[in-house]
Amino acid sequence: MALLSTSAGSTRFDVPPYVPNGNECQLFETAWTRQLPLLLKGPTGCGKTRFVSHMAARLGLQLSTVSCHDDLAAADLTGRYLLKGGDTIWVDGPLTRAVRDGGICYLDEIVEARKDVAVVLHPLTDDRRMLPLERTGEQIEAPPGFMLVVSYNPGYQNILKALKPSTKQRFVSIEFDFLPKAQEVAVVSVESGLDEARVAPLVELANRLRKLKGNDIEEGVSTRLLVYCASLIDSGMDRREAIRAAIIEPLTDDPDVKTALAEVANALIV
Amino acid sequence: MALLSTSAGSTRFDVPPYVPNGNECQLFETAWTRQLPLLLKGPTGCGKTRFVSHMAARLGLQLSTVSCHDDLAAADLTGRYLLKGGDTIWVDGPLTRAVRDGGICYLDEIVEARKDVAVVLHPLTDDRRMLPLERTGEQIEAPPGFMLVVSYNPGYQNILKALKPSTKQRFVSIEFDFLPKAQEVAVVSVESGLDEARVAPLVELANRLRKLKGNDIEEGVSTRLLVYCASLIDSGMDRREAIRAAIIEPLTDDPDVKTALAEVANALIV
Amino acid sequence: MALLSTSAGSTRFDVPPYVPNGNECQLFETAWTRQLPLLLKGPTGCGKTRFVSHMAARLGLQLSTVSCHDDLAAADLTGRYLLKGGDTIWVDGPLTRAVRDGGICYLDEIVEARKDVAVVLHPLTDDRRMLPLERTGEQIEAPPGFMLVVSYNPGYQNILKALKPSTKQRFVSIEFDFLPKAQEVAVVSVESGLDEARVAPLVELANRLRKLKGNDIEEGVSTRLLVYCASLIDSGMDRREAIRAAIIEPLTDDPDVKTALAEVANALIV
Amino acid sequence: MALLSTSAGSTRFDVPPYVPNGNECQLFETAWTRQLPLLLKGPTGCGKTRFVSHMAARLGLQLSTVSCHDDLAAADLTGRYLLKGGDTIWVDGPLTRAVRDGGICYLDEIVEARKDVAVVLHPLTDDRRMLPLERTGEQIEAPPGFMLVVSYNPGYQNILKALKPSTKQRFVSIEFDFLPKAQEVAVVSVESGLDEARVAPLVELANRLRKLKGNDIEEGVSTRLLVYCASLIDSGMDRREAIRAAIIEPLTDDPDVKTALAEVANALIV
Amino acid sequence: MALLSTSAGSTRFDVPPYVPNGNECQLFETAWTRQLPLLLKGPTGCGKTRFVSHMAARLGLQLSTVSCHDDLAAADLTGRYLLKGGDTIWVDGPLTRAVRDGGICYLDEIVEARKDVAVVLHPLTDDRRMLPLERTGEQIEAPPGFMLVVSYNPGYQNILKALKPSTKQRFVSIEFDFLPKAQEVAVVSVESGLDEARVAPLVELANRLRKLKGNDIEEGVSTRLLVYCASLIDSGMDRREAIRAAIIEPLTDDPDVKTALAEVANALIV
Amino acid sequence: MALLSTSAGSTRFDVPPYVPNGNECQLFETAWTRQLPLLLKGPTGCGKTRFVSHMAARLGLQLSTVSCHDDLAAADLTGRYLLKGGDTIWVDGPLTRAVRDGGICYLDEIVEARKDVAVVLHPLTDDRRMLPLERTGEQIEAPPGFMLVVSYNPGYQNILKALKPSTKQRFVSIEFDFLPKAQEVAVVSVESGLDEARVAPLVELANRLRKLKGNDIEEGVSTRLLVYCASLIDSGMDRREAIRAAIIEPLTDDPDVKTALAEVANALIV
Repeated sequence: MALLSTSAGSTRFDVPPYVPNGNECQLFETAWTRQLPLLLKGPTGCGKTRFVSHMAARLGLQLSTVSCHDDLAAADLTGRYLLKGGDTIWVDGPLTRAVRDGGICYLDEIVEARKDVAVVLHPLTDDRRMLPLERTGEQIEAPPGFMLVVSYNPGYQNILKALKPSTKQRFVSIEFDFLPKAQEVAVVSVESGLDEARVAPLVELANRLRKLKGNDIEEGVSTRLLVYCASLIDSGMDRREAIRAAIIEPLTDDPDVKTALAEVANALIV
Repeated sequence: MALLSTSAGSTRFDVPPYVPNGNECQLFETAWTRQLPLLLKGPTGCGKTRFVSHMAARLGLQLSTVSCHDDLAAADLTGRYLLKGGDTIWVDGPLTRAVRDGGICYLDEIVEARKDVAVVLHPLTDDRRMLPLERTGEQIEAPPGFMLVVSYNPGYQNILKALKPSTKQRFVSIEFDFLPKAQEVAVVSVESGLDEARVAPLVELANRLRKLKGNDIEEGVSTRLLVYCASLIDSGMDRREAIRAAIIEPLTDDPDVKTALAEVANALIV
Repeated sequence: MALLSTSAGSTRFDVPPYVPNGNECQLFETAWTRQLPLLLKGPTGCGKTRFVSHMAARLGLQLSTVSCHDDLAAADLTGRYLLKGGDTIWVDGPLTRAVRDGGICYLDEIVEARKDVAVVLHPLTDDRRMLPLERTGEQIEAPPGFMLVVSYNPGYQNILKALKPSTKQRFVSIEFDFLPKAQEVAVVSVESGLDEARVAPLVELANRLRKLKGNDIEEGVSTRLLVYCASLIDSGMDRREAIRAAIIEPLTDDPDVKTALAEVANALIV
Repeated sequence: MALLSTSAGSTRFDVPPYVPNGNECQLFETAWTRQLPLLLKGPTGCGKTRFVSHMAARLGLQLSTVSCHDDLAAADLTGRYLLKGGDTIWVDGPLTRAVRDGGICYLDEIVEARKDVAVVLHPLTDDRRMLPLERTGEQIEAPPGFMLVVSYNPGYQNILKALKPSTKQRFVSIEFDFLPKAQEVAVVSVESGLDEARVAPLVELANRLRKLKGNDIEEGVSTRLLVYCASLIDSGMDRREAIRAAIIEPLTDDPDVKTALAEVANALIV
Repeated sequence: MALLSTSAGSTRFDVPPYVPNGNECQLFETAWTRQLPLLLKGPTGCGKTRFVSHMAARLGLQLSTVSCHDDLAAADLTGRYLLKGGDTIWVDGPLTRAVRDGGICYLDEIVEARKDVAVVLHPLTDDRRMLPLERTGEQIEAPPGFMLVVSYNPGYQNILKALKPSTKQRFVSIEFDFLPKAQEVAVVSVESGLDEARVAPLVELANRLRKLKGNDIEEGVSTRLLVYCASLIDSGMDRREAIRAAIIEPLTDDPDVKTALAEVANALIV
Repeated sequence: MALLSTSAGSTRFDVPPYVPNGNECQLFETAWTRQLPLLLKGPTGCGKTRFVSHMAARLGLQLSTVSCHDDLAAADLTGRYLLKGGDTIWVDGPLTRAVRDGGICYLDEIVEARKDVAVVLHPLTDDRRMLPLERTGEQIEAPPGFMLVVSYNPGYQNILKALKPSTKQRFVSIEFDFLPKAQEVAVVSVESGLDEARVAPLVELANRLRKLKGNDIEEGVSTRLLVYCASLIDSGMDRREAIRAAIIEPLTDDPDVKTALAEVANALIV
């Protein structure tokens, strides 16, 4: 998903555009200055990843992103021993590389990772700012230029997959939500090439469907899906077919819910 | 299962025949043009795999297919380290090869795979279009000629095995269903060699049995089974025995249900 | 268990004898001719394995049998990397060998295998007839002389261990049951050496006990147990002791059920 | 536990003594002659293992015993690849060695093993008498001098750990129980060195406690525990202390049940 | 989190500052003198880790810290075999190194570790003071200069993750809690640079929110979060936004609870 | 924990002191003489481990102790293959070493081990006295000088973690409990250096708290905790603080139970 940066003066040549929705840029910069780790919370496709790319470029920092998943273990972040010419040699993982070199290490959807990952982050997120590598016996101190950013979607949290309070309390936290309507129309129009007039009813439709979240559909329509939909229309596809392929089908498999969503769409998109 | 392509003008010499059922060919081409990933939904044996082969050939693209299963992990797609002459060397998996070389990578029955697979696809399916290989430290940018297609059968979805909304919202989606009767008769006749007159009651039988889905039988009769049945009849086997072996026995193990299905068949196939 | 072939004319010198119970030989041959995969369903010890051996010999085909179990994974069928002189080399599994060389590959009790096995079979059982080896990047096309046969016992199926409809619908299917009485008497007599007059009450006993299946005993008496029992009697053992050792004890551990079965036996075997 | 063989004429110099309790010796010999696999059922410490040793020596056969447990997998029986000088070489497991060399292979407490073990036994226990080694591609035919014997304790069976009917129906079966009183007195006396007069009340006590099985205690007193108890008394220990240490404490941890058992003992052992 | 040491006379040049809350320093020193292992109990971020660093420096001891997690096994503490030039060599883990070299080994959040870890500690925490390395056959006696310290948060304990009594009874134990108000104000002010007058209402807010623990929020506000919050305010951020980012968002994801917490904050922070 | 041996005449120079509580020394010696395996049952910290050390020294036997845990598998006891110079060589585990060399092998908390461990012990604990190493094909006969001792705490037993009757019935068993009051006072005084008059109320307190076991606290106070407590007092710590740190905190995390226990202590320790 692509969001345009409108924050005056701070856009440099190769900074990915980003439209701030509140004080998140100031908070990020303050956290960076005070060497505090940061936690981003928010729904799918609302721009968290883009925000981190934007801030990394703006602050001139290297960005290393790790998408977390059920099988991601601490060793995938810190490193492991590999065989090389008959010897076992140590190879740094992405977190270790970031701690050594400085820059931002961004762990996307941290709650998905195995639980040992959270614990590896503990000594990095208190005043020690240190990454202990138990298997090599090394203890790497994070340089001032290192910052840890993690994100998760609170909508998915369940008992088995929640961050422990002892982990959460190690991060300054920002909550994200979808853009206000006018901003979202602008962003979708720029990303898809479709004019704003034809984008506006799509954003209106998205906002109506987002209110259904938790009832018939699990998650609200992301800005990304709106860009997909506008792209299909911009390529000449019928609007209703585009809405079906890029909004309704990705939201649900239930025939009744599909019919209901299509009726909402038909009422709006005449 | 084999389906004939009737879409005028687009059939090239070695394009597998395919009979479109709606706007799926246009949607595929638009998604390809706009570099959007695609999700195909639909029941067993309705032609999803054939459709992908058809479109790949039509667009002149390399096709790499991976059948997903319970033990398919991210490393099976991205690659792993192997021992070679005492060294550990990296060997690309099928997804990595497809991202490097371009073409279509098709992950069949994606919900069956382990959950880390979905997360590997995330950076490939947003505006980054990038495959990060954590274990080598490489980040491969997908060339414009790369397209990701995945499929699943919504009928099988359960709580443990559903695509997360954050994954679904990364794909333009198409729903598949069985062919209309006349088209299915034509396809089965061509595939089996049995004349259309003798195929027609088999398709009629299939459509009646498909309505029983969810009651006595778990899944409707696939076009593939109709081709099997017509092939057995074409080889001289008694029609009732062919229906038993190619339709009734593959659908159920329950003696009472078998009897009921045989009665439906007997009423149609005089 | 040994069953005599009485199918006129088709017995060659080293073809294991087999007594057909219906149209199964014709169905097998037709499936072979039309290159369709075959699924055999039926209770323990009713002759499925013998039938496959018989047909393989009759059609002059190589037979490769794999007994499936809870830990049988796809890699056990397709192959794996082994260390050889410091290098990692690929070694074909039995399914890969059969696809390369042609002949019948018979997977006995397929539902017992791990679920990734079923998915490996999918591209082999549609019109692609292809075995993709993800780990080597190879895609082996099955020659016309390759046939896949699988079997399972529907009596054992449960929710965790059922073939998915998308797998079942890839096979022409045959249901097996025990032999009619006269045929079973002949088979047991030939196999054990005991004369038919003394075998007959044993078969009669088996048929009575088979009706108790699902109540006190989990599975009916197999022809194999009858052959065991007749062999013990033929070796001079007391009939009641032979029935206890070869029929009652293998069927149940419950003292009350044992007494009840012994009473049924005593009433018949005077 | 040690049991004296009183079967006239069959005792050779190094045959472990064994007191038959029924027709088990004849059944074993007949099964051996007819090449039928054998299943021994019975409670803990009733002499199953001793019986197999006795018969193996009597028939002049090599005996290979494997104690099965939760982690025993098929590969532990059949063999595995090991590294040797940089190469991977195959090393036979105990079952494979027995099949190659002939003799008795005895799998003690077969239900404890992992389920893939049972399936490995299937081709060995039908008319094929063959051990397929999937990983080497070898199929070893069992020589006439090979016999498979397995045992289990039906008292422990539960839903998760029962032999499948398709496995049970592959074995001639013998049920074992404790010895009649006079025989057990003789055996315990010989094994412990304590005179029969002082052993008799211990056996009487055991028989009373065996009737409590399933109520307060899980399993009846084994002959082994009686030998332990008599040995302690023979070494000069007080009888009540010996009964407590060798009978009551091994049977239960519950203080109330201990008191109850001690009262039964006190009433008998004046 | 940083806490100032005010304990007179005991501060050496590089001793991390620590404010004692009771007799914990005396207890630690006595345990050290008497060679008794120590267990620290207390909530997240109350200063356990800092306390251990403080005492280690004060006593002039080497400190080795291991953060425990779900996948931390005994071998991660004791050591493992690694390949080196074709040989397998033993490499000590952090616990083994500490036992060999003396000093404090601190296992943070011990209940998170796998259960075999607790058992490895048993021979180290009785009068044997010995670390047996089963895999090397070595038994290392702990020198007088070795001390074991472990910690856990009793608030997280559940049935699956509790220390066994047989483990707990091997440690002298100290319970930790948050600092008294005046001390906490001083600490937060020093750590953040914000004057005490502006810190005081934040500590007051924290104490109110700590009383809600167990109702709407899982864990009380840690001193660490207060330092974060004061740092953001010190950097010029609006107080309410700082409280939201550093206190409310890290405590909860529930919109209603957030509103309630914000109201408590608004009432205090005028 | 340290217990003084008062058994007249049997104390040799380097025999760890031990105070017998009943006939356990005689039972151990008889079991040793008659080559019977021994099982020790009893609560945490009641002296089982010390007893074994004492008897081993008294009988002049090598002692090898293994603390069992959830991940201890048979291979950890018997041995495993390791890579050495490119070859796989076999390395004996502690049980195998003890069987080869003779002496006592003591498995502490045997119920904690994985279930395959119990089965490995079976052939060692019947009249075969043999350790079969399946992976090497070796069968090691235990020399007369080998004795197996195991222990467990019946208080922890549950359905998942109980010794099977077929295992229990292989051991002569001794139940342990805490020492009588006068003996325990003497032991704690000697171990801690605190005079008996000041130890007596601590033992009195322990006996009162032991009666609460199963209600508010899971396990009674061990003699070890009393020694800890007396040591702290002997080092000059306030008695109530010592009781809190060495008795109350190790017993419970519940604030109400702590208050109740402190009241019991205050009533006794004026």
